Amino acid sequence: MRKVAVLGMGNVGAAVAHHLVVAGKVDDLYLYDTNEEKVKADALDFKDSMNNLDHFTNIYINDYDALSDVDIIVSALGNVKLLDVPNPDRFAELKFNRPLVLEWGARLKACGFKGIIINITNPCDAICALYQQASELPREHVIGTGTLLDSARLHRAVSEVFQVSPKAVSGYSLGEHGDSQFVAWSTVKVFGKHIEELCADSDISLPAIDDAVRVGGFTVFFGKKYTNYAISAAAVRLVDAVFADAREEMPVSNYREEYKTYLSYPAIVGRSGIVARCELPLTDEELSKLQHSADTILHKTEFGVS
Amino acid sequence: MRKVAVLGMGNVGAAVAHHLVVAGKVDDLYLYDTNEEKVKADALDFKDSMNNLDHFTNIYINDYDALSDVDIIVSALGNVKLLDVPNPDRFAELKFNRPLVLEWGARLKACGFKGIIINITNPCDAICALYQQASELPREHVIGTGTLLDSARLHRAVSEVFQVSPKAVSGYSLGEHGDSQFVAWSTVKVFGKHIEELCADSDISLPAIDDAVRVGGFTVFFGKKYTNYAISAAAVRLVDAVFADAREEMPVSNYREEYKTYLSYPAIVGRSGIVARCELPLTDEELSKLQHSADTILHKTEFGVS
Amino acid sequence: MRKVAVLGMGNVGAAVAHHLVVAGKVDDLYLYDTNEEKVKADALDFKDSMNNLDHFTNIYINDYDALSDVDIIVSALGNVKLLDVPNPDRFAELKFNRPLVLEWGARLKACGFKGIIINITNPCDAICALYQQASELPREHVIGTGTLLDSARLHRAVSEVFQVSPKAVSGYSLGEHGDSQFVAWSTVKVFGKHIEELCADSDISLPAIDDAVRVGGFTVFFGKKYTNYAISAAAVRLVDAVFADAREEMPVSNYREEYKTYLSYPAIVGRSGIVARCELPLTDEELSKLQHSADTILHKTEFGVS
Amino acid sequence: MRKVAVLGMGNVGAAVAHHLVVAGKVDDLYLYDTNEEKVKADALDFKDSMNNLDHFTNIYINDYDALSDVDIIVSALGNVKLLDVPNPDRFAELKFNRPLVLEWGARLKACGFKGIIINITNPCDAICALYQQASELPREHVIGTGTLLDSARLHRAVSEVFQVSPKAVSGYSLGEHGDSQFVAWSTVKVFGKHIEELCADSDISLPAIDDAVRVGGFTVFFGKKYTNYAISAAAVRLVDAVFADAREEMPVSNYREEYKTYLSYPAIVGRSGIVARCELPLTDEELSKLQHSADTILHKTEFGVS
Repeated sequence: MRKVAVLGMGNVGAAVAHHLVVAGKVDDLYLYDTNEEKVKADALDFKDSMNNLDHFTNIYINDYDALSDVDIIVSALGNVKLLDVPNPDRFAELKFNRPLVLEWGARLKACGFKGIIINITNPCDAICALYQQASELPREHVIGTGTLLDSARLHRAVSEVFQVSPKAVSGYSLGEHGDSQFVAWSTVKVFGKHIEELCADSDISLPAIDDAVRVGGFTVFFGKKYTNYAISAAAVRLVDAVFADAREEMPVSNYREEYKTYLSYPAIVGRSGIVARCELPLTDEELSKLQHSADTILHKTEFGVS
Repeated sequence: MRKVAVLGMGNVGAAVAHHLVVAGKVDDLYLYDTNEEKVKADALDFKDSMNNLDHFTNIYINDYDALSDVDIIVSALGNVKLLDVPNPDRFAELKFNRPLVLEWGARLKACGFKGIIINITNPCDAICALYQQASELPREHVIGTGTLLDSARLHRAVSEVFQVSPKAVSGYSLGEHGDSQFVAWSTVKVFGKHIEELCADSDISLPAIDDAVRVGGFTVFFGKKYTNYAISAAAVRLVDAVFADAREEMPVSNYREEYKTYLSYPAIVGRSGIVARCELPLTDEELSKLQHSADTILHKTEFGVS
Repeated sequence: MRKVAVLGMGNVGAAVAHHLVVAGKVDDLYLYDTNEEKVKADALDFKDSMNNLDHFTNIYINDYDALSDVDIIVSALGNVKLLDVPNPDRFAELKFNRPLVLEWGARLKACGFKGIIINITNPCDAICALYQQASELPREHVIGTGTLLDSARLHRAVSEVFQVSPKAVSGYSLGEHGDSQFVAWSTVKVFGKHIEELCADSDISLPAIDDAVRVGGFTVFFGKKYTNYAISAAAVRLVDAVFADAREEMPVSNYREEYKTYLSYPAIVGRSGIVARCELPLTDEELSKLQHSADTILHKTEFGVS
Repeated sequence: MRKVAVLGMGNVGAAVAHHLVVAGKVDDLYLYDTNEEKVKADALDFKDSMNNLDHFTNIYINDYDALSDVDIIVSALGNVKLLDVPNPDRFAELKFNRPLVLEWGARLKACGFKGIIINITNPCDAICALYQQASELPREHVIGTGTLLDSARLHRAVSEVFQVSPKAVSGYSLGEHGDSQFVAWSTVKVFGKHIEELCADSDISLPAIDDAVRVGGFTVFFGKKYTNYAISAAAVRLVDAVFADAREEMPVSNYREEYKTYLSYPAIVGRSGIVARCELPLTDEELSKLQHSADTILHKTEFGVS
């Protein structure tokens, strides 16, 4: 059977839980939130769904004794309101989430948790490092959703330009799940061709697509003050890949020795987390952007930690 | 292909859309909301999910020209904030939703819509009647989720008492999806036995379960200020039954000639909506409660309409 | 993760495996057959499916070391050709399958298997007893598909008469998964009414439906020399119920102390197998048929064993 | 609602139907076979499954009047026994299937069928041309599964060498779904790298993988005298892509003007069939192999037709 815990029942955690329940992706679902009334309400709402769903799921709330037996933990801790202010502090999220993550990491270490952490909590890359340090899990057991979301947004933006579906677009956004990320255009293909070739034959410009990716995230955030469905889809895909041991290639936040940090770069995801790392033939410009992004993550992490 | 429209992207409409998308229940999904920024945000959030989902869905927003081709309309119009006040006006929802529903009904009539309306908008039974009158669809084409939700809550409450899953409980809540509804205990079975027999052999009391059903709804509502997952599951099950022509028995709001109103009573749901009506061997007491519930709906509807 | 073993890759075992794989019901699938070329062929055929499926499944063949870690074993051992002769020996299947089942039971005992056996191998009720004795598992850990299939056929036959879907029909075939089984008409309901009431108001006769159920099985068997899809659906539903701990009521073969045998009677199926037994308010005639069916199973079992 | 017809209920057609039913991919399923007893048996076996499945499907047999309303036709006509002889005639399949396909094509033309044909019947590329000519459908409405199967086999063979899952391998087999097909190694990537680079750094040889792909098909065929699961998965993926209008890139048999024939080459598959064609940057050697494969198909087709 498949046992998943979701930490934090805000908009993102609740969407992950809803997705897991209605798509029949889990057998035992453990929900955790310090807002006891909210997590009770969501749990009951799910239980009242069961008789009208295809698949049955057992729902538990704030059951700390069960953690040692859980296979996968999805961290959706956070406070989205920190970002909905005129000039959001770039470190506000880290300040807020750091103690929560350290507490959870210590709790997982104490109970002997041996499974996989799928981290959504922002800043995603820095938080992955904190989870790994506090839980003392192998680095490969902590995966950040990272640019799996941004790559999906990239595919959507490209797909709109070329009038295909996102499924016909491949390629990656890399680096920080944050401002220093970049699209590795040398990896992007549509119709079997590199996008740069396609653009050379047309009046489509890559910077315009780049903008469309960025604007997409803002449109979602400003339209509803949070984003939850796409990030939830990314996390649930990781849950699936871990359970099925799919050993699928995905751009997720994983620890790269050469950069001394978690950052998003394609890796093979399976039952024991990151089971292999990929090596893209990036251009020099892309490599330099990636180094810059790694530096940014490390700077933020240190600042946040010190 | 399966084309569904969701009217209203509040908490309920958004949960219905999320459920339909992640469970692969629809091919073309049309979302409608007067809050253009919200519906755009949700649509983009869904589009950015596609590359990480098992099933692809096309998402459209506020496309009124497409309505005539849609198979099923799920009405989730409403304003949940009307209920979150100290002494909610029993008619506040009807006053607020009536003009919206009449506008939508007229729009559907004008465009020649021939499909099925699955109505969640409250007061569910009265709104079903309004939709039918304004759209001039056959009565059988309008189905209210009604006590399909309340019956699921009943199953959950009973299941907790008997330590089974809700799937092992059968039986119905009937009448108004509102205060005058009641559990038809003569229909409730667990372990193959009538619940009244089971209770006679134990210290379990039906009124206590009845209370648990009621309290459940409040717990959800007060814990998060809305309820959305269970009602969404009920609506999506109806969507499924219509597409598959499953001709499944479900307690939904349907027009009963003898009561001159829509109210919840088991019916057979298939591709043309209500394809047959059931006849339960109710007790005299239950029949009297049902008559009272019908009277209540009619009174509210008239009051609201006049 | 969900680990299932299928014993026997004949038409039934292969259909179970195909169902589990394409519906994403399992993560690790272990296939066993003494015909090494056949099981290799099916395994490779499944592996070559993966890139075109929604869900990834790991496939293993004849891996006896893995058995101790498997959650559920589906036994589809058997030789359908035994039945495709002019006057099939009523005990031919038992004679053929008995040594295979005893060998598998002993193997499971030896490796410390603690999971659930879902038995399809015929004669279903007698084989359940053999599995339980040889494996020394608790009686509740062995479940026979039994009349879960026959009840589905009953629902289909009734649904055709009343022009609903099988999902609108409830009720049970009970007893032996074999000639002595019977429809417990007192349990059958359509449109919310007991079928006997419905028939009283019409020219529909229960014996005619009874015949239709019987003829159904023959039509399938004589049309393709085996039956596999419906039995596979029954087995996979049990797999689902066990993983999800759905504690759902189903008419399956389970050990009933009062009859001293496995036979089909509704029970609650969950993660530890049979988690509770139901008690139907059967008529005296039905009780007498059930006793006769139990006697038949016991007679066959003893004859086969001695 | 989704309406699919499957032509031919041999091992392949039956596997396609089983897949569609248990994975909930279709609402109305129409089965056709001249062996009336076999198709009746399969249909009843499916109907007897419904009450134990998550999704309901309506099953119809040999209903020629319904064809004009069907969305997608999956052609699985054929006689696998033609291949199970010592020296199979390379044209035996075409001789056998040609009149059947012409009859079906004419029938579809007569009834005004406007949907999509997904062709599995071999020789796949030649049969696609026959279907298109006889039905007078637009060329884009006929899609052959072609090397979508062979590419999946390629991914599996490569995945075994590199110990990843097939989902981590990309790239194509191109050309004829037959002996003249070839792997376009320049398109194959694992771990984000071109396979030729990966091999250069190791002792893995491409010809050895090439052999493994070929041997795979034989292992399946000789182990069970037919292959059905992987080809069914390919066909069902196409069904999904058409219903969802997924506009996904897949290597399928489609008409390429420059080769004057149907052959497998990546194309974008959506609701109107082939919605766009891809252009791979193939090497000169690959282009020459592709021309040879096209010539082979044309030669066979003419020979078979004349």
